Amino acid sequence: MDALREAIRRHGRHLGNGIIKVDAFLNHQVDAALMAACGQELARRFRPWQPTKVLTAEISGIGPALMTAYALGVPLVFARKHKPLTMGEDIFFATAPSHTKGGDITLLVAADYLRPGDRVLIVDDFLATGATILALARLAQAAGATVVGIGAVIEKRFEGGRERLKALGVPIESLAVVIGVEGERILLEDA
Amino acid sequence: MDALREAIRRHGRHLGNGIIKVDAFLNHQVDAALMAACGQELARRFRPWQPTKVLTAEISGIGPALMTAYALGVPLVFARKHKPLTMGEDIFFATAPSHTKGGDITLLVAADYLRPGDRVLIVDDFLATGATILALARLAQAAGATVVGIGAVIEKRFEGGRERLKALGVPIESLAVVIGVEGERILLEDA
Repeated sequence: MDALREAIRRHGRHLGNGIIKVDAFLNHQVDAALMAACGQELARRFRPWQPTKVLTAEISGIGPALMTAYALGVPLVFARKHKPLTMGEDIFFATAPSHTKGGDITLLVAADYLRPGDRVLIVDDFLATGATILALARLAQAAGATVVGIGAVIEKRFEGGRERLKALGVPIESLAVVIGVEGERILLEDA
Repeated sequence: MDALREAIRRHGRHLGNGIIKVDAFLNHQVDAALMAACGQELARRFRPWQPTKVLTAEISGIGPALMTAYALGVPLVFARKHKPLTMGEDIFFATAPSHTKGGDITLLVAADYLRPGDRVLIVDDFLATGATILALARLAQAAGATVVGIGAVIEKRFEGGRERLKALGVPIESLAVVIGVEGERILLEDA
């Protein structure tokens, strides 16, 4: 993913406290061609595990997760943070502490869209502390589905999420790894 | 868009008060292949107006808008409803009354990502009252950009949005038109 690394180098900026600004191409303005490339690469890596569904959390996970689902030929489900009027009463819940906002967030998925027998690939924009991804995994498990993999566009290795997620026993893939920060600079692991 | 009409017929349900449940393929579970087809069709219809950017509102607009941006080869910008930590101080704001939630929502776009000279195609999942789309148009205008078109996946013709948006003087395209409801049933305009 040279194009992704190049985008991070060119546009990424460390704002302090490990918070990385990548809103030029990932989570406000979105480079659609780059997202498609990320989705294709995640699909390539996880296709052997035969996912039947991609699961993400609103909001910024939707772009890369949709492109991954499209490349795999399976549906996307995005967990909601607020119950919309159109959601029924048969719902799976999981909570996760919010790294950037403080407090807890609740993730909800309608029971109709996660089923026993589903092989779930979790995709998110960031793998940081792993808290959101762990909550998504609990949603899948609550539904009796099997988590088959975890994919992230950008991993912040220094926040320890990969270690926390190891207990799930599934492959974890990220397309670019931030190993540290230095002032405003973002330090990437070598490809 | 026969596939879209078929998905609405098969999965869509009227919940009362004109609220349409399409969360099996559009705004909770997402049919990625159908979204790609919707994006390609919107791109085909608006390509002559040479959009340089697609603009939508989080959350459910992101899927179809990203696929439209990808098909056009331009970036997507999704307006945020809450200011994330990564957003600077140079921001365009617009407010719109929320049809489904009550009260007002505020939409925000960082000034970096909407520029004078941009030719903005607005894409959303629904065209209902037109309030959200009108707010997106005001964001583009505040930035000195030009709105060149409005595209929606599903238009609820009976909520009058198209009439409200006519003053913008740009082409408005929707891929399926709901002309009314009858109990739980959704009545679609003939193709």
